[in-house]
Amino acid sequence: MRKVKLTLAYDGTEFAGFQVQPNVRTVQGELMSALDTILGEKVKLIAAGRTDTGVHARGQVVSFRTATSIPTDRLPAALNSVLPRDMAVWQAEDVPADFHARHHATAKIYRYLLYLGRTPAPFIRHYSWRLFWAMDVKAMQEAAAELVGKHDFTAFCAAGSPVKNKVRTMQRIHIVSDRDLVLIEAVADGFLYKMMRSIVGTLVKVGRGVLTPEDVRDILAQNDRPRVGPTAPPQGLILWQVVYDNLTAPEDTPGSIGLTLPWGYVKISL
Amino acid sequence: MRKVKLTLAYDGTEFAGFQVQPNVRTVQGELMSALDTILGEKVKLIAAGRTDTGVHARGQVVSFRTATSIPTDRLPAALNSVLPRDMAVWQAEDVPADFHARHHATAKIYRYLLYLGRTPAPFIRHYSWRLFWAMDVKAMQEAAAELVGKHDFTAFCAAGSPVKNKVRTMQRIHIVSDRDLVLIEAVADGFLYKMMRSIVGTLVKVGRGVLTPEDVRDILAQNDRPRVGPTAPPQGLILWQVVYDNLTAPEDTPGSIGLTLPWGYVKISL
Repeated sequence: MRKVKLTLAYDGTEFAGFQVQPNVRTVQGELMSALDTILGEKVKLIAAGRTDTGVHARGQVVSFRTATSIPTDRLPAALNSVLPRDMAVWQAEDVPADFHARHHATAKIYRYLLYLGRTPAPFIRHYSWRLFWAMDVKAMQEAAAELVGKHDFTAFCAAGSPVKNKVRTMQRIHIVSDRDLVLIEAVADGFLYKMMRSIVGTLVKVGRGVLTPEDVRDILAQNDRPRVGPTAPPQGLILWQVVYDNLTAPEDTPGSIGLTLPWGYVKISL
Repeated sequence: MRKVKLTLAYDGTEFAGFQVQPNVRTVQGELMSALDTILGEKVKLIAAGRTDTGVHARGQVVSFRTATSIPTDRLPAALNSVLPRDMAVWQAEDVPADFHARHHATAKIYRYLLYLGRTPAPFIRHYSWRLFWAMDVKAMQEAAAELVGKHDFTAFCAAGSPVKNKVRTMQRIHIVSDRDLVLIEAVADGFLYKMMRSIVGTLVKVGRGVLTPEDVRDILAQNDRPRVGPTAPPQGLILWQVVYDNLTAPEDTPGSIGLTLPWGYVKISL
């Protein structure tokens, strides 16, 4: 038996989330069916993170044990030949037998795109949250800075999470903007249930002037869930990268506007 | 009565093309229904160009006469409030009574995206043609240069076109590439039926080495339709801009890689 790690991308638009469920189309369900076809065995799949309905992934990671004789470097092409076109396996690696896609992740990078344009943008409708207010990006950045560091993020965790320890370390939050687009990137050692979308909803409240950066500090300190912004809609969110070693996330070169849309990292010239 | 010009964008993925037809969802059908709702009158719509099923538009132009009292600058928001989310009106302008969206167009700009990656790219599956061969971009550029100028493009016109005069002036063809992506931009005073997709299919044959730039010159000179490449699939094509005055198309700054994906013009850093 070998342990294999897969990195996959998917457009979450037409999936009922990652986790397999009866009678609905899920990423895990499609992937397990493809693995069954290619490997001829039912594998136990461990995922780095479960994304919700409509949430995208550029760098989701899964691991599983297999007895297949197919060379690891052949697995992506073999799996992609049977996977639906809204998902793709980008990389396959042999990993130690004790590798665990979730437990061994040292950090996750999520990105969220806001669209502030007066006109609807048909081509990013599935990949952004359209807002009808102007955003004070500087205030959003100040509020984001309050979240950086080791904190109890209970206020930003949606109800119904079984997780007891809600202390996480936010390594950084970058917010870049250009005209009608605002991109929020958060890097943490872990994210609670809907934590990223709660943070985005709260930062949008700050951008609108409904909350101040100081309010965000208080919300965090007092676990004041009721004052947290609405959970941002799923389609603006993408699981960008799962990190298993020292953090190597792309930085924005000074002065440039880096934006990540689901199909890749781009610099926008509007 | 006034004459109004609308500029609209649409994601062609879920439309059976632009032109209204019974029992299928078309861009024109949705737009006329929205105009009917907002203006309370049935208008006669003139479009700059009819895009086929699956073809996208960033700058489609339509014109119509109307007796509405709604201020022109209010029309985009009014129409977008009732239009489906995969299309949007970006601009509305008052134009002279004799304005004709098709006859008065001095040039059209189409762009086409090729994806050469070894791994499927879920997020651009509806906006690119995935190829499984390496492309000789320099040869493609040489072949494209053969098409620039005033020529009889009969060889690049799909069968069944009623158009008699097949002479068009190709003002320029730009081809830019970066790793797995190749973008082809063509600017002409007019395009025959499926002409852009025939040109792309032929340039891809050149990129593969199946045809040489000299072959393309001969095909053009001899109206040799059988040697023209296959019509490229629709999803990689976007009607980028319709020009009504002197050409003001975005140029690629030297050394940079400019790529247009359906939702906008971007510089890619892969």
